[in-house]
Amino acid sequence: MTVQLNETHDVKLGSWVASANQPDSDFPIQNLPFAVFRSKAGGDFHIGVAIGDQILDLHAAYAANAFSGFPSLQSTEVALALQSNSLNALMGLGAETWSALRLALSRILRAGAQQEASLRSALVPQSDAEYGLPAQIGDYTDFYTSVHHATAIGKLFRPDNPLLPNYKWVPIGYHGRSSSIGVSGQQFRRPLGQTKPPTSDTPVFGPSKRLDYELEIGIFVGKGNELGDAVTIDQAESHVFGLCLLNDWSARDIQAWEYQPLGPFLAKNFASTISPWIVTLEALAPYRLAWDREQADPQPMAYLDSADLRTHGAFDVQLQVSLQTQAMREQGVAAQSLSQSNFRHSYWSVSQLLTHHTVNGCNLRPGDLLGSGTQSGPQPSEAGSLLELTGGGKEAISFPGGEKRIFIEDGDTVILRGWAHKPGCARIGFGEVSGTVLPARTL
Amino acid sequence: MTVQLNETHDVKLGSWVASANQPDSDFPIQNLPFAVFRSKAGGDFHIGVAIGDQILDLHAAYAANAFSGFPSLQSTEVALALQSNSLNALMGLGAETWSALRLALSRILRAGAQQEASLRSALVPQSDAEYGLPAQIGDYTDFYTSVHHATAIGKLFRPDNPLLPNYKWVPIGYHGRSSSIGVSGQQFRRPLGQTKPPTSDTPVFGPSKRLDYELEIGIFVGKGNELGDAVTIDQAESHVFGLCLLNDWSARDIQAWEYQPLGPFLAKNFASTISPWIVTLEALAPYRLAWDREQADPQPMAYLDSADLRTHGAFDVQLQVSLQTQAMREQGVAAQSLSQSNFRHSYWSVSQLLTHHTVNGCNLRPGDLLGSGTQSGPQPSEAGSLLELTGGGKEAISFPGGEKRIFIEDGDTVILRGWAHKPGCARIGFGEVSGTVLPARTL
Repeated sequence: MTVQLNETHDVKLGSWVASANQPDSDFPIQNLPFAVFRSKAGGDFHIGVAIGDQILDLHAAYAANAFSGFPSLQSTEVALALQSNSLNALMGLGAETWSALRLALSRILRAGAQQEASLRSALVPQSDAEYGLPAQIGDYTDFYTSVHHATAIGKLFRPDNPLLPNYKWVPIGYHGRSSSIGVSGQQFRRPLGQTKPPTSDTPVFGPSKRLDYELEIGIFVGKGNELGDAVTIDQAESHVFGLCLLNDWSARDIQAWEYQPLGPFLAKNFASTISPWIVTLEALAPYRLAWDREQADPQPMAYLDSADLRTHGAFDVQLQVSLQTQAMREQGVAAQSLSQSNFRHSYWSVSQLLTHHTVNGCNLRPGDLLGSGTQSGPQPSEAGSLLELTGGGKEAISFPGGEKRIFIEDGDTVILRGWAHKPGCARIGFGEVSGTVLPARTL
Repeated sequence: MTVQLNETHDVKLGSWVASANQPDSDFPIQNLPFAVFRSKAGGDFHIGVAIGDQILDLHAAYAANAFSGFPSLQSTEVALALQSNSLNALMGLGAETWSALRLALSRILRAGAQQEASLRSALVPQSDAEYGLPAQIGDYTDFYTSVHHATAIGKLFRPDNPLLPNYKWVPIGYHGRSSSIGVSGQQFRRPLGQTKPPTSDTPVFGPSKRLDYELEIGIFVGKGNELGDAVTIDQAESHVFGLCLLNDWSARDIQAWEYQPLGPFLAKNFASTISPWIVTLEALAPYRLAWDREQADPQPMAYLDSADLRTHGAFDVQLQVSLQTQAMREQGVAAQSLSQSNFRHSYWSVSQLLTHHTVNGCNLRPGDLLGSGTQSGPQPSEAGSLLELTGGGKEAISFPGGEKRIFIEDGDTVILRGWAHKPGCARIGFGEVSGTVLPARTL
């Protein structure tokens, strides 16, 4: 887990794609995140890299010999990966290849690059593109890394016992559903299910009345590990392809009734939505922070500890949730911010999640997705879910035009955004992930 | 969900494959289960059907024009499915195609069939074959359908609250790990992990000391459903391709420490092992039983209820666990039976599991696997795990030669078997699933 700055991070670099040089662009030449996209007019999905308001089509760039001057990208495996319709193959090639590709992309997209003329036709405006899932997600695991979220939720579900004794020892996680993961723009029906009103001895069946979002970071596994092997904490980040935004939609009323003793199931698996763009760890190198444990807390067990953690185990990524009701959308009113948080507050590091996941020999595969769990900050206003922001569904949030929300209503769109920025460094944006709730299926 | 007997179930049918006509064969011509296999000498995986001690290679049978006389099998989709290296495509074609294929297989393998001469070369002895996973398993869900198991385990984890209030309303399930599912013969390392000894305030790290098996039925999803749609209970069985045996290995000490509040994770995801053969629901038609609820129990909610349940919602499938220690294996001592149970005891039906899974709009895909949960019967001796058979790890089981077991030790092989049999009907066997525990990875 080495974090080194190199020429690709130089804040002075500009691109021949002019929109990438705007200071508020999420996608300057220092970012270079990956997605799977195609033209809105149809056609095959290709891998692309964001640059300003454009996408560099890597299939087209490969065909235009853009990478011919880079010896470490001349293998058949790289050629196949760049021409694939998903990122799984590239993810499986490992950190050295990702880094070599990043360097090549930086050089060919840089202002003055000789490839400009041949690559102009490999650009697709983001406004003309639609996105696919970036990878075939074999398994999806969701963690629970915000101690602030765990404590707040724990108070609601178990007032006398909010934070369980294992929380500060075990990076708590559980398996989620991969089939229902969609990409930004996903629309899904409000789930039906069993819930038990507090006033009743028996459950009722119907649409969820407590539908919520969860503000999460998604972690895409790059290189996998064989069943029976484990990934040490010092190797863990070399197995991570990059990060995205993840909205882990949750039906709180279904969850409360079903989750004992085996965990959430139908309360979560009706939909999860991710952002199209995956930001590599290398792009985030300028935004690493020391990860630390309070003295009063248990220090991590040996397999979860590393000197590197103390210098740069965390990520300084700002996160924001906003919501636009159907009425706001119809009236042209912009989405309203509900909260902001930061991934730096995560109690467990990305490397700890990956290492813990494999310590028992569990095999990860390229394209597997790990969720960070809801990223609530230390302040109540930094909560990453409505359940927290409304005090357990008790205090409504007011919107322009007089609308109020306790939980999500039909037609609402929830938008998550993420970005890293500080003086002297280029802005590294995640773009956004949006999702819209449709009315429940008719019974 | 109609269960009809037809000519393929006729007990008087014999096959030109003589070994299929032995009364103790798991694979008479009335069974015709599917697997993915190849020669032990190597080569590509093909789909095959068990007949006696042989496998009919469906790729080879297709090439030999075995199905040319069956009009409903003449589509391109069927041709591609029969020549695939996994069962996903066939699973996705739906119940009418599976039934048409079964009829064709019954006719071409029947004694006197004119296809005998051309199909002899499409037979591969099971003793010369190795098996692959029958399908690419997109998502794996494990349920908890034995009320006897849930009560016994509940007593150990929550003595004052063994069966939770939701159990008799909700078919409790959770998502498991698909990457670590292996086929019979799987060998895996004893998992390492955090456990908290009752005598200590803090956890320790090391190999699991309470490694266990779980005797389960696996349910392979055939035709899927779109996200947002639900499968009604009367349609549910038409979405089930078939059943297999499943050993859901479990590390009880890791589970006890990690499972609150989000359920089992590393305690389960290091390995799960399934039998190679998938027995279709049509083959099991003679072994359907009424599914019933005790009067004192809550009756199923409307979406989980159906008149068909009361006539034939359950399956009469005998189940057996046996164990062979390394010493027994080296001395040529046969595996010793630990317990027997029956899938008929399941508190929830297969159709209820599938319908519940989709009622919130969750999409299932062909090849998804549902586990039944440990199938413990009503008697303590019918328990489907060591945790139950040893009274929570307190009473050792004795083996020939003086060995004792409380939990699984390194080198032990656990074998699950399943079969349906009654007078006047052909035996429908599941074969077996075996798995062997290797020593933990060195720290």
